[in-house]
Amino acid sequence: METARIHRRHFLIGSASTAGAIAAAGVTGSSFPAFAAETKELPDYVSWKDADKLIMHTEQTLEMKRGAGGTSVITPNEEVYIRNNLPSPDESIVADRDAWEVSIEGVNDPRTLTVGELKNIGIETVATVLQCSGNGRGFYEHETSGSQWLTGAAGCILWSGVPVRKVVEELGGLADGGNFMTSTGGEQLPEGVEEKDIIVERSVPAEAMENAILAWEMNGDEMPLAHGGPLRMIVPGYYGINNVKYVKRVAFTEEETDAKIQASGYRVRPVGVDGAPDQPSMWEMQVKSWVTHPLKDSESGRVQIYGVAFGGDKPVEKVEVSLDGGESWQDASFIGPDLGRFAWRPFLLTADLEPGDYVITSRATDSDGNVQPESTEPNHRGYDYNGWDRLAVEVTVV
Amino acid sequence: METARIHRRHFLIGSASTAGAIAAAGVTGSSFPAFAAETKELPDYVSWKDADKLIMHTEQTLEMKRGAGGTSVITPNEEVYIRNNLPSPDESIVADRDAWEVSIEGVNDPRTLTVGELKNIGIETVATVLQCSGNGRGFYEHETSGSQWLTGAAGCILWSGVPVRKVVEELGGLADGGNFMTSTGGEQLPEGVEEKDIIVERSVPAEAMENAILAWEMNGDEMPLAHGGPLRMIVPGYYGINNVKYVKRVAFTEEETDAKIQASGYRVRPVGVDGAPDQPSMWEMQVKSWVTHPLKDSESGRVQIYGVAFGGDKPVEKVEVSLDGGESWQDASFIGPDLGRFAWRPFLLTADLEPGDYVITSRATDSDGNVQPESTEPNHRGYDYNGWDRLAVEVTVV
Repeated sequence: METARIHRRHFLIGSASTAGAIAAAGVTGSSFPAFAAETKELPDYVSWKDADKLIMHTEQTLEMKRGAGGTSVITPNEEVYIRNNLPSPDESIVADRDAWEVSIEGVNDPRTLTVGELKNIGIETVATVLQCSGNGRGFYEHETSGSQWLTGAAGCILWSGVPVRKVVEELGGLADGGNFMTSTGGEQLPEGVEEKDIIVERSVPAEAMENAILAWEMNGDEMPLAHGGPLRMIVPGYYGINNVKYVKRVAFTEEETDAKIQASGYRVRPVGVDGAPDQPSMWEMQVKSWVTHPLKDSESGRVQIYGVAFGGDKPVEKVEVSLDGGESWQDASFIGPDLGRFAWRPFLLTADLEPGDYVITSRATDSDGNVQPESTEPNHRGYDYNGWDRLAVEVTVV
Repeated sequence: METARIHRRHFLIGSASTAGAIAAAGVTGSSFPAFAAETKELPDYVSWKDADKLIMHTEQTLEMKRGAGGTSVITPNEEVYIRNNLPSPDESIVADRDAWEVSIEGVNDPRTLTVGELKNIGIETVATVLQCSGNGRGFYEHETSGSQWLTGAAGCILWSGVPVRKVVEELGGLADGGNFMTSTGGEQLPEGVEEKDIIVERSVPAEAMENAILAWEMNGDEMPLAHGGPLRMIVPGYYGINNVKYVKRVAFTEEETDAKIQASGYRVRPVGVDGAPDQPSMWEMQVKSWVTHPLKDSESGRVQIYGVAFGGDKPVEKVEVSLDGGESWQDASFIGPDLGRFAWRPFLLTADLEPGDYVITSRATDSDGNVQPESTEPNHRGYDYNGWDRLAVEVTVV
């Protein structure tokens, strides 16, 4: 959906001053250790995660620290962020993973299939960036509700499951009028609340089916319950919210669902404006990158500057690094294997740094020539800040 | 070293009967659940591993079950096999990872570098198959000492670290006469034993340096102590033994080390013959594949047959699957992203199976046209069985 991208590009602050960038960068660099110190004990349902690598905003929202994640392309499951709209279902749903059922509708031969049956239809593996719509919210200056994510509500993951297009083919193909692929989560809904106000149900354009998989595996392990096991809808290139967990229904529908999470939630809109179905939905991700090293003061001499870059729903083609807050740029190189257009790529620039103050940031370009902007204009919910100004880090070299 | 490959090819049993193949396959398929039942409590140093996915041969040798590992290309750290020649060093060596020292010798400016310093020289990420020389030993019919590995002393891993060639360049380049790259492990040696009889020190041809890295990261996580952290030599395409753990010295030497593990150990030799330096060393791996699903009886109808395939030190180009013990073959397709020439690739063949007995096996071909053989002639130590006959699984479809 180009509308979302154009909409956001229109929001750019063209006049962000370097001073502003430095100040914002200072917040990132300096507040980082403070955030780390606040780490609390992990809740039971994610007790297997690596607490040292995470920042816990709430019981349902955990972010990977900016310096975690390494340079190995994939993000270990223990470090992948958590953002659950509803509490995780009971562990009993992963006791017999193959028995989990998903109803497939809007096809010529609608059926309920078990995971065991899905495993017999086909297998595909795809690496994708999983990124929360609100990743970077903490960089906006306007007041926003929700977790103040910095860079860590994102990871790069290898998923394995059945291609949705193969399931559709198996069930006689799409019925007429299937404009959207609508996935429903299997969370237990609290009582006394209108279902459509609370249910996790998301629609994406039906063509997203071409790359989507119903996944039971995450980085080679059974899909953890906390990440949507036994079965999760993976829509490569789309924001995390569209990757519905514990998916119990996939329907090809004429209209988008009227669930609140779709109708008014996850809409890009000016500050102060209510959410509505005619606003761009948080579907395809946009080009983005950030530095993950160094984040702190450094000794002079040679410094390895690295981070991650991705194109959203397109391959990332180029990354540049600036040491002076965007005054000048140098081409970085990519590290390691290319896991495909939906994955991120670690990048590297080796620099010789004299003593002094640096504002280090990165700027990615996707294969269509879209360049990561200097700044991102405020939107009401503080979605996906991708401006290279505030993603910068301030480093003093001594 | 072509010698090793030619040597082993010369060992092929050309006359292995199909009946023999079926019998051997039966051992694999049927004994699998029995092995699984024998799983014991994991030793402390690998207590973080996934016991359900492992077979424990001894405290120092743990194998991944054939059905574990999934289809996501990489093997999760929790499932990667363990084969330690000596007990793991004390955990104190990973308390300050950046302080670990490695001495670099046989360069023009020899020096001892810390991991912290290495991290400033360069960064590269490479996916490799890590495979024990003895993987498949259990398929040989002759008596062999050592763990009776089946398929699971192997995994595919993303490593991140500094390219050895950059370290060499940093230290003024190779000194004259550096024919071999000799790496020494930092294990504490038991007292009262001749050092060269016990030390883990391995030489590989110096040109292996071109792809080698000194790695501090394994699948995005800090290198676990049990896998060689803080620092491990990774020699892509070479058997596990050459990927020296807790590496404390890398020397470019004129001769191979005279340590027993090199001079007489890990040599390919006829049964009953003593190990000697003129025999082929377990260096580059050979083309290999095996099916990981199905391993058990199956219902009739469509069955997804999958497994893993690799070319050793060359890319794998093709995999064929046979349902009749090698009488006929069908081309399989690869699943997911290609992580490079040293990685394995999951493969898939979808088959419609009528009720009956099947002997399912796979046969890989590397980019040089080397084809995985029908059988592997016995060698004294039972190294790397790669014959598609005994790697087969017997499946009854009802």
